[in-house]
Amino acid sequence: MKISGRHYRAIWPKGDAVVVIDQTRLPHEFATRKLSTMQDAADAISRMVVRGAPLIGATAAYGIALAMREDASDGALDRAHDALLATRPTAVNLRWALNRMRDRLRDRPRSERAEAAWAEAAVICDEDVETNRRIGLNGLILLKAAVKRNGAPLNVLTHCNAGWLATVDWGTALAPIYMAHDAGLPIHVWVDETRPRNQGASLTAYELGAHGVPHTILADNAGGHYMRTGQVDLCIVGTDRVTANADVANKIGTYLKALAAYDNDVPFHVALPSSTIDWTLASGDAIPIEERHADEVTKMTGRLADGTVATVDIAAPGSTAANPAFDVTPARLVTGFITEAGICPATAQGLRALFAKADRTP
Amino acid sequence: MKISGRHYRAIWPKGDAVVVIDQTRLPHEFATRKLSTMQDAADAISRMVVRGAPLIGATAAYGIALAMREDASDGALDRAHDALLATRPTAVNLRWALNRMRDRLRDRPRSERAEAAWAEAAVICDEDVETNRRIGLNGLILLKAAVKRNGAPLNVLTHCNAGWLATVDWGTALAPIYMAHDAGLPIHVWVDETRPRNQGASLTAYELGAHGVPHTILADNAGGHYMRTGQVDLCIVGTDRVTANADVANKIGTYLKALAAYDNDVPFHVALPSSTIDWTLASGDAIPIEERHADEVTKMTGRLADGTVATVDIAAPGSTAANPAFDVTPARLVTGFITEAGICPATAQGLRALFAKADRTP
Repeated sequence: MKISGRHYRAIWPKGDAVVVIDQTRLPHEFATRKLSTMQDAADAISRMVVRGAPLIGATAAYGIALAMREDASDGALDRAHDALLATRPTAVNLRWALNRMRDRLRDRPRSERAEAAWAEAAVICDEDVETNRRIGLNGLILLKAAVKRNGAPLNVLTHCNAGWLATVDWGTALAPIYMAHDAGLPIHVWVDETRPRNQGASLTAYELGAHGVPHTILADNAGGHYMRTGQVDLCIVGTDRVTANADVANKIGTYLKALAAYDNDVPFHVALPSSTIDWTLASGDAIPIEERHADEVTKMTGRLADGTVATVDIAAPGSTAANPAFDVTPARLVTGFITEAGICPATAQGLRALFAKADRTP
Repeated sequence: MKISGRHYRAIWPKGDAVVVIDQTRLPHEFATRKLSTMQDAADAISRMVVRGAPLIGATAAYGIALAMREDASDGALDRAHDALLATRPTAVNLRWALNRMRDRLRDRPRSERAEAAWAEAAVICDEDVETNRRIGLNGLILLKAAVKRNGAPLNVLTHCNAGWLATVDWGTALAPIYMAHDAGLPIHVWVDETRPRNQGASLTAYELGAHGVPHTILADNAGGHYMRTGQVDLCIVGTDRVTANADVANKIGTYLKALAAYDNDVPFHVALPSSTIDWTLASGDAIPIEERHADEVTKMTGRLADGTVATVDIAAPGSTAANPAFDVTPARLVTGFITEAGICPATAQGLRALFAKADRTP
């Protein structure tokens, strides 16, 4: 999508390296970062320079490619796979991308692996863009169906960032919104701030603003009130892992919004590529939930009046914090899945019907 | 309660003035502020130097007393009443305290009004302390009933600040917790950060820490996860207004926590003095919800590394925010009310049975 009129992807190859947008510095500063080694890629994922399940997968794929440049042995391939897999535990696209890379490289001669890995990572990125475009087109059907006859804007609430910055391009949850906006549908997005890392206020608001989509930031606490008072027409969020029974792991706080949507008959949709489905897990209770550092809760980074970026302590001195990064939303609270293959109910059967041809089906 | 071993109330008379703790500067700095005029009191309420429904009522009572010092006429009494009532719309204790003050003063000769007002404000404060002590004793019954046989700490989640800083002393939701802790019950409090003004991370964490009660700050998004995973034994929150049908207005985000508690069979209790009951409103839908400035969402104040206090912009430049300060939790999600008169179900009948003798009953 565009920033100041120039089209960007969230990751792109440049010479022998890969370039990503440093998302830890948004929205205060637009800066890119060059990843030249597998370790650079691993660090970018674990430090959340890149984040979002699809973008993590794409970055990990390039991480394998960078590793193969240095050492194309089986041992190096396994080590790179394991090091990258260890960066973050919850998103399943990471494992999906790494397994795909290893499967494609394993039976090739060493001499071809570096080049093949580079090409495969590029294919993963291009496929991600196409997948998200299809998610957008499918989600657009739901948005068009919800458009109001009186011309009032459709109010869509989203949590965290499942926009183009979370993918290679388009985004998952935001792809239908970009398409609706571009098609001239009146649309307004309620953007959950998404504490503690504020991906909503910093990334979703940034990318919607850069594209010109009307939006309003809300404290995470406010979404329930807006649903109760009829000011949310539907919710769309992304996900880091969907289990075979259709439970949804996503950014911490998603569960609370799904409860409020259910309580107020507001449709609650989850947008995802099929690579986010973990057919190996029977239910969301088995998903590992990443626990991150307390500093993310007790400190906050922003711009001082003079424009410099500073971090402040916001909590009572001496108090500690807990920081689970994801929660699990039970399938019963989810209205539908918006995928590249179509829309389906959030049920085991719904997923199987849509992806029956997939060899990942158990 | 105590700060550094010294006992404080949240408001106290000093000479011809009233002193309050400046809660906009906590937890970064402990500072008091002298209120010498009615306008000082009104400003302290509207700027949230003092906040919390009971403390707002107490401050407004002293505001009337300060006004009577300058002009004890009927007109001045009405003007002070109206000016103080206009400071904040949601908490009903404000109206309750102002009406009580006016009722007590109206039929007195002007010459006695200043002294009578001062005395009545002091009575309101003393009564608030006693009311909260009784709330604490009643709530303690629930905490004792929930204590685990294995000696593991009881995990109580609270939202916003309904501690002694929200009242004159003891607090409402935190009064039972202080009593349980002082009685040697193992208790641990999950403190919701409570964006956008962070009353949890700044005030609740501060006062629990100062009193030595174990606690952990959570992003507001995290409570649902902890309830789903069995790590919350019960919730206790305060309230700004309870309507005749037992709906509960409280800090924005309370509704989301009540939904999660209900979904996981976690008891969800609301602690309140009877002055918080608005018998004139049939349901929570009629409660006015204060909309505050967007800056509270897009900016954050904290301590820089050198200890100075600074405010940073945290949102994407150009993005706006909405900021409703309260939401309404339907009575069906509330397990019980903890009041000075006893504990009752969150129903119209439950409230009437407990307060049948009150002349406020419709």
